[in-house]
Amino acid sequence: MSYLSKLTRSIIPYTAGEQPQDMQYVKINTNENPYPPCPKVRKILDTFNEDKLKLYPDPNNTELANALAKKHGVSFENIFIGNGSDEVLALCFPTFFDQNGAFLAYADITYSFYKVWAKMFGINSKIIPLTDDFKIDIEEYKNLDDSVKGIIICNPNAPTSLGLGRLDLLEVIQANPDKIIIVDEAYADFSTNSIAGFVKDYKNLLVVRTFSKSYSLANIRCGYAIGDEELISGLKTIKNSFNSYTVNSLTEKIAIAALEDNKYFAENIDKITTQREDTADALRELGFEVLESASNFLFAKHNKMAASEVYYRLKENGVLVRHFKSPRIDNYVRITIGTKEQMNILIKKLKLILDN
Amino acid sequence: MSYLSKLTRSIIPYTAGEQPQDMQYVKINTNENPYPPCPKVRKILDTFNEDKLKLYPDPNNTELANALAKKHGVSFENIFIGNGSDEVLALCFPTFFDQNGAFLAYADITYSFYKVWAKMFGINSKIIPLTDDFKIDIEEYKNLDDSVKGIIICNPNAPTSLGLGRLDLLEVIQANPDKIIIVDEAYADFSTNSIAGFVKDYKNLLVVRTFSKSYSLANIRCGYAIGDEELISGLKTIKNSFNSYTVNSLTEKIAIAALEDNKYFAENIDKITTQREDTADALRELGFEVLESASNFLFAKHNKMAASEVYYRLKENGVLVRHFKSPRIDNYVRITIGTKEQMNILIKKLKLILDN
Repeated sequence: MSYLSKLTRSIIPYTAGEQPQDMQYVKINTNENPYPPCPKVRKILDTFNEDKLKLYPDPNNTELANALAKKHGVSFENIFIGNGSDEVLALCFPTFFDQNGAFLAYADITYSFYKVWAKMFGINSKIIPLTDDFKIDIEEYKNLDDSVKGIIICNPNAPTSLGLGRLDLLEVIQANPDKIIIVDEAYADFSTNSIAGFVKDYKNLLVVRTFSKSYSLANIRCGYAIGDEELISGLKTIKNSFNSYTVNSLTEKIAIAALEDNKYFAENIDKITTQREDTADALRELGFEVLESASNFLFAKHNKMAASEVYYRLKENGVLVRHFKSPRIDNYVRITIGTKEQMNILIKKLKLILDN
Repeated sequence: MSYLSKLTRSIIPYTAGEQPQDMQYVKINTNENPYPPCPKVRKILDTFNEDKLKLYPDPNNTELANALAKKHGVSFENIFIGNGSDEVLALCFPTFFDQNGAFLAYADITYSFYKVWAKMFGINSKIIPLTDDFKIDIEEYKNLDDSVKGIIICNPNAPTSLGLGRLDLLEVIQANPDKIIIVDEAYADFSTNSIAGFVKDYKNLLVVRTFSKSYSLANIRCGYAIGDEELISGLKTIKNSFNSYTVNSLTEKIAIAALEDNKYFAENIDKITTQREDTADALRELGFEVLESASNFLFAKHNKMAASEVYYRLKENGVLVRHFKSPRIDNYVRITIGTKEQMNILIKKLKLILDN
């Protein structure tokens, strides 16, 4: 006898990147931003009136929703805020898809939480393989039949780092007016591919974003969706059937401060994208094949050493990268772009490992 | 055509207490604590290293889990932490109950989120009516057949405020070794009824608690469950299939500070329970029938004026209480215990209203 449900006994949860406590690593395995959040965050903490913590937060996070609406040129009714983009994405599954109903389509190699959420909420998945060079074949997404109710695309894609061009994505959206297209833009700020500016034009487009990566705020747990009022109101219905208040007032204030500091944001992005190209070049010189990244990480395989060995030997040397033991990608490592100093250590250690 | 699922189009979400922005109310409608959180919270905000916000929080909130384990005399493996007790309770539904499977039993008058979660996760409910005087008849819960997989009891109950004695609850737990018994103790710190000390003795007992009420921390969103390792590990599986990190490091540090300040906590509880008895007496003098509260709120009906009128006239007078338009309880108002000053205003305004 078990007190647990059949689902609990059969689901395989999402595996987050390891966070070992045994020593200090150069931690470039979970796509965190290596730079601190914007300086005003300190002021928020210093001036926040702690007496307010006795009261529930605003369930709609109105102040942040208005700031996001302004940033994206939409209305309050077009913004949904959640506890990280993971919560926003998780809630999309029951909001838009019926249990054991029409399919949700997504790539075979993409953010691995999608298939967990599909199982969690009993949603049927239609898996569309990436091409041999890990690209999304938009023709496949333009010719889906009625058995498919919607599509989720991570763009830039994880863990491949590749971006799908905005115009290609628009073709997919236009070809599927009856299907919802969810675009997970966790990494879009490191690219020129964001489709967020088009939500007003397409009622079937939902764009999901996060403060975790480009705003250096993975800790606070704040993400959001932008979309047509019907989609947003559906998300609110399901959220209020799960947990009414998931983003507290401190998180809300910190996110607003980050949104307002455009200069710091741009400098942060510039440093990472510059460092990304320098690191990719250095890796190529060491014999790695490196995919063309549109994100804050690189996906690379070595021409001689297996990825599992690269991973283990780097870990022994105090550098933590990510290796997925999954079909098609098990010979790649995923490397988060860190500071210049961290990248120098990575390259130095790799030289050492490859020379032996 | 709709982009929304059948569930989204049919579910009626939980309705949180109103939070009007049109004027400053004496806000005693959402069972918040009227006193500020413990003084050390200020120090947490002042000394928190904001640089840490760039990294994901500890997904297990190990430091807080260890502090809670110590408080309750259990181990780390017996503690599950979530984004408010609402998230913990919500996750209990898919963790322990099968869709369209055996029933979850709960009272007709209780926390109204239970029936929403049941609908959200497709769990069948067996509704057991409270007695005419709003009590839980434990005989009903001791004689459930195999069609029932588990029970959820809010103790003290909301919105009735009534507590079920610990020994009565133990009888229910002992009579149902094959069923999981979830006890929602959101208000237990205002009573002597907590069953938390018994989790080590019963593998089928899960106790859910929150920092929102007794710790004056409704805003931070932090709750937890205590139970046998199998139950906790099941909750972790489902949580990691939904959202891996839902409690950030600031929330974690603030909760730990609150846990450590036993003296402030005891003073806070004392003030509220004393004020509760004084307010109940004053209401009775004004012609209210007031239920014997074991919580931080009162449930009361007037012998002449309808509850809807009490609610509306108080709101006109700047005092916000809660009125549920639900069968059996629509002639009651729920009044949160505020500060002495707030309670004096309540009584003064009620006198005014009832005299007219």
